[in-house]
Amino acid sequence: MTLPTLEATPIPGLVVLRLDLREDARGWFKENWQREKMVALGLPDFGPVQNNMSFNAKRGTTRGIHTEPWDKFVSVANGSAFGAWVDMRDGDSYGAVFTVELDPATAVFVPRGVGNSYQTLEDGVTYSYLVNEHWRPATPYPALDLADATVAIPWPIPLDEAEISEKDRTNPSLADAERMQPKKT
Amino acid sequence: MTLPTLEATPIPGLVVLRLDLREDARGWFKENWQREKMVALGLPDFGPVQNNMSFNAKRGTTRGIHTEPWDKFVSVANGSAFGAWVDMRDGDSYGAVFTVELDPATAVFVPRGVGNSYQTLEDGVTYSYLVNEHWRPATPYPALDLADATVAIPWPIPLDEAEISEKDRTNPSLADAERMQPKKT
Ligand SMILES: Cc1cn([C@H]2C[C@H](O)[C@@H](COP(=O)(O)OP(=O)(O)O[C@H]3O[C@H](CO)[C@@H](O)[C@H](O)[C@H]3O)O2)c(=O)[nH]c1=O
Ligand SMILES: Cc1cn([C@H]2C[C@H](O)[C@@H](COP(=O)(O)OP(=O)(O)O[C@H]3O[C@H](CO)[C@@H](O)[C@H](O)[C@H]3O)O2)c(=O)[nH]c1=O
Repeated sequence: MTLPTLEATPIPGLVVLRLDLREDARGWFKENWQREKMVALGLPDFGPVQNNMSFNAKRGTTRGIHTEPWDKFVSVANGSAFGAWVDMRDGDSYGAVFTVELDPATAVFVPRGVGNSYQTLEDGVTYSYLVNEHWRPATPYPALDLADATVAIPWPIPLDEAEISEKDRTNPSLADAERMQPKKT
Repeated sequence: MTLPTLEATPIPGLVVLRLDLREDARGWFKENWQREKMVALGLPDFGPVQNNMSFNAKRGTTRGIHTEPWDKFVSVANGSAFGAWVDMRDGDSYGAVFTVELDPATAVFVPRGVGNSYQTLEDGVTYSYLVNEHWRPATPYPALDLADATVAIPWPIPLDEAEISEKDRTNPSLADAERMQPKKT
């Protein structure tokens, strides 16, 4: 299997991976994440402790913008989604936005402190991600309004037609959202 | 999130996990794999190095029976499949068979040396799994005939109607298949 190719983005450390999708009469096969190859390509040595999946019944379902204190490796297991990220780390790239269409051949490494969100472009899409720290129900994680006017994410489906959780309807604007401390090196 | 419940099977070390699927208006969310919880429940401390996904266009697509020398944590990301396993480890349980329907709320931990296979029960199913060693293209891994008469797996869709790879059409019968060395403890 060919090595993925990497693409840098305006958000430092946030990297798009173009995966080798092996197609045959059955469908396709992918090494969605492969530690050795991804480290060889320059990604951090990511030791996942949790694999989460979220299934979205309807096109337009929108989740985010969530900023947890751990790294994520995100992709779709089927279908397609519009992915959007906002740099919430205090520093030069604070507020930088990046969007890309997620299909099965595309994965994104999201460093901690970057806000994560997506909107499905079809019915029945499963989003899958690996994280390198365990989720703790007691800790509230910072979030940003999906409709924030400053970052102005160009959602393909208008948010007023989108399925969105109660929680994600009351997230603060950029001016009020918590800034994340950049990771010490 | 509630701890998964575990079910033992006739194959030692092969365990079925019933996951807590959190449903809401958007769809569902699951901790598909969660290291800390699964170790607490008694599963081996599984350190994945690779996350593979295979997409199957048509109902009846059948893959297997593959016996690699590493552990697997398998589940579906959407839809459903019939999963079947055969113990290929030399020892008392050699030849034991176990089958279960895989839906998003069901995962299976498959110890190394157990043959792994599945057949999709719907169109468009993505099967996802974590493994704790890297795949090596140069190494041929042992496999068993999907139609082996001794193990006689009750495939829901007849194999002559199933999409099967070239490779999986020429696997040996149980009598001729390689026996795996049980893991030293
Ligand atoms: C397992 C694996 C396969 N490949 C490549 C080899 C082929 O070009 C393509 C599909 O491989 P196949 O072996 O035909 O895929 P499949 O029949 O689904 O079987 C895979 O998935 C099975 C689980 O369903 C495993 O039990 C098999 O060992 C594994 O090979 O992907 C990789 O590039 N990396 C891998 O890790
Ligand atoms: C993240 C997480 C959530 N949960 C539970 C809490 C809820 O009952 C249910 C759904 O959680 P929500 O927070 O509404 O899911 P969602 O909006 O998709 O957001 C999740 O997935 C996002 C990625 O899409 C992350 O950026 C969020 O931090 C994460 O919470 O699952 C768990 O049991 N374990 C978890 O790890």
